[in-house]
Amino acid sequence: MDMDMIKFVKNDKFAHFIGLKLITVEPGYAVVQMEVQPHHLNGVGFVQGGAIFTLADYAFAAASNSKGSATLGISANISFFRTPKGRILTAKAKEISSTNRLCSYNVDVLDEDNELIARLTATGYMKKDKV
Amino acid sequence: MDMDMIKFVKNDKFAHFIGLKLITVEPGYAVVQMEVQPHHLNGVGFVQGGAIFTLADYAFAAASNSKGSATLGISANISFFRTPKGRILTAKAKEISSTNRLCSYNVDVLDEDNELIARLTATGYMKKDKV
Amino acid sequence: MDMDMIKFVKNDKFAHFIGLKLITVEPGYAVVQMEVQPHHLNGVGFVQGGAIFTLADYAFAAASNSKGSATLGISANISFFRTPKGRILTAKAKEISSTNRLCSYNVDVLDEDNELIARLTATGYMKKDKV
Amino acid sequence: MDMDMIKFVKNDKFAHFIGLKLITVEPGYAVVQMEVQPHHLNGVGFVQGGAIFTLADYAFAAASNSKGSATLGISANISFFRTPKGRILTAKAKEISSTNRLCSYNVDVLDEDNELIARLTATGYMKKDKV
Repeated sequence: MDMDMIKFVKNDKFAHFIGLKLITVEPGYAVVQMEVQPHHLNGVGFVQGGAIFTLADYAFAAASNSKGSATLGISANISFFRTPKGRILTAKAKEISSTNRLCSYNVDVLDEDNELIARLTATGYMKKDKV
Repeated sequence: MDMDMIKFVKNDKFAHFIGLKLITVEPGYAVVQMEVQPHHLNGVGFVQGGAIFTLADYAFAAASNSKGSATLGISANISFFRTPKGRILTAKAKEISSTNRLCSYNVDVLDEDNELIARLTATGYMKKDKV
Repeated sequence: MDMDMIKFVKNDKFAHFIGLKLITVEPGYAVVQMEVQPHHLNGVGFVQGGAIFTLADYAFAAASNSKGSATLGISANISFFRTPKGRILTAKAKEISSTNRLCSYNVDVLDEDNELIARLTATGYMKKDKV
Repeated sequence: MDMDMIKFVKNDKFAHFIGLKLITVEPGYAVVQMEVQPHHLNGVGFVQGGAIFTLADYAFAAASNSKGSATLGISANISFFRTPKGRILTAKAKEISSTNRLCSYNVDVLDEDNELIARLTATGYMKKDKV
């Protein structure tokens, strides 16, 4: 596991600002949690889609960068399935593929009932340098 | 334009929290801006992908809901093209298609040099009720 | 399993034309295979992306329609991971989520070495009528 | 315009097999047409989604490869908006962005009434070599 890259991941200001917690990080795998707060909600009282995307995308960033190459997100596709229940949302990112300088990750977002509420598929470009 | 729905859009807590400003809203069209602050940055000092997604997705929410039906985002695809320059990011959402209960929007995200830095394609489901 | 809907799936002219074989179909799950022929190749001798998409999308159509509602594909995201090896490509479609009139499927495309060569995420709209 | 790369594009067996016609090709731009035939239809008599994807994706391949680098499609997102009318479908691919080795294209698919029936967003990886 690349500790320099993990330092960059941990230094993510936006992730701190919205309250994301990095629970597990291994090369190609990461778990991130968010405790739902009033500031995460949209105008009708549900967790805002951008908050869910950010949670999932940060899990992707942690999983991919921990392999040692600075990885840029180049495209991502998110599907939203249902309104989450409970206070804790958990995103689990797992590498699907890594070839040449490209990688692909699946990120499942689960609510407190362990129901799948959203899924992100992210494609990254692994730079040769660390930063 | 549906003022009830716009009230819901304006009441989005997460959009306020991260500092998004609704500049223009018309049925099927919206412009949202974000002034880049330190809390929007990732661990290497660039605007975090989640902040860019949230900016674009909020423009989609404003444009779609202002038509009068509560619109749920069901899937979204974002491509990131380049690191933004300048302090202000602008997202412009425009309806591409609206048939039956489904709609599709294109959202361009521009930096202060008016360069396209990201593009979101969002698919929404228009509920029969307002909320 | 809805036999009327399966009849429609089996009557797909384009699937026949390019040589797709429906191996397994159950409500929410389907397996489709394609034996690679010269007419499936692109200009540099690899299986063309459109052929891979069609294989995966047909597995999605079989899995979703067999549940009994005519299901329209409204958006789909495909990622291509590697050049396939061997003669037989297999697509396995599985329902991820089904709520209200919307459904989401994951389709893995495997080559003869059982390597994952592409993944499709498809979102469908289930009509109230069969056709 | 790179004539070697265009030769590869023109030599696409699957595009020939399903009946695609390359109408215009310029670096970063291409138009492809398909005259709808019975073998393009699905089980309920509409143009099959895989045929529409292949049409759009081939326009992307023509537009991107004509710039001179062999371009691999790494991910693509397609949205389907309405059932096409008339006999001729036209796909117009246009470069949105090209940075480092990555490029992004928008492809609009129009029917004979010039209505937008689908849109593809494709991300490509430009190899250093021609093939």
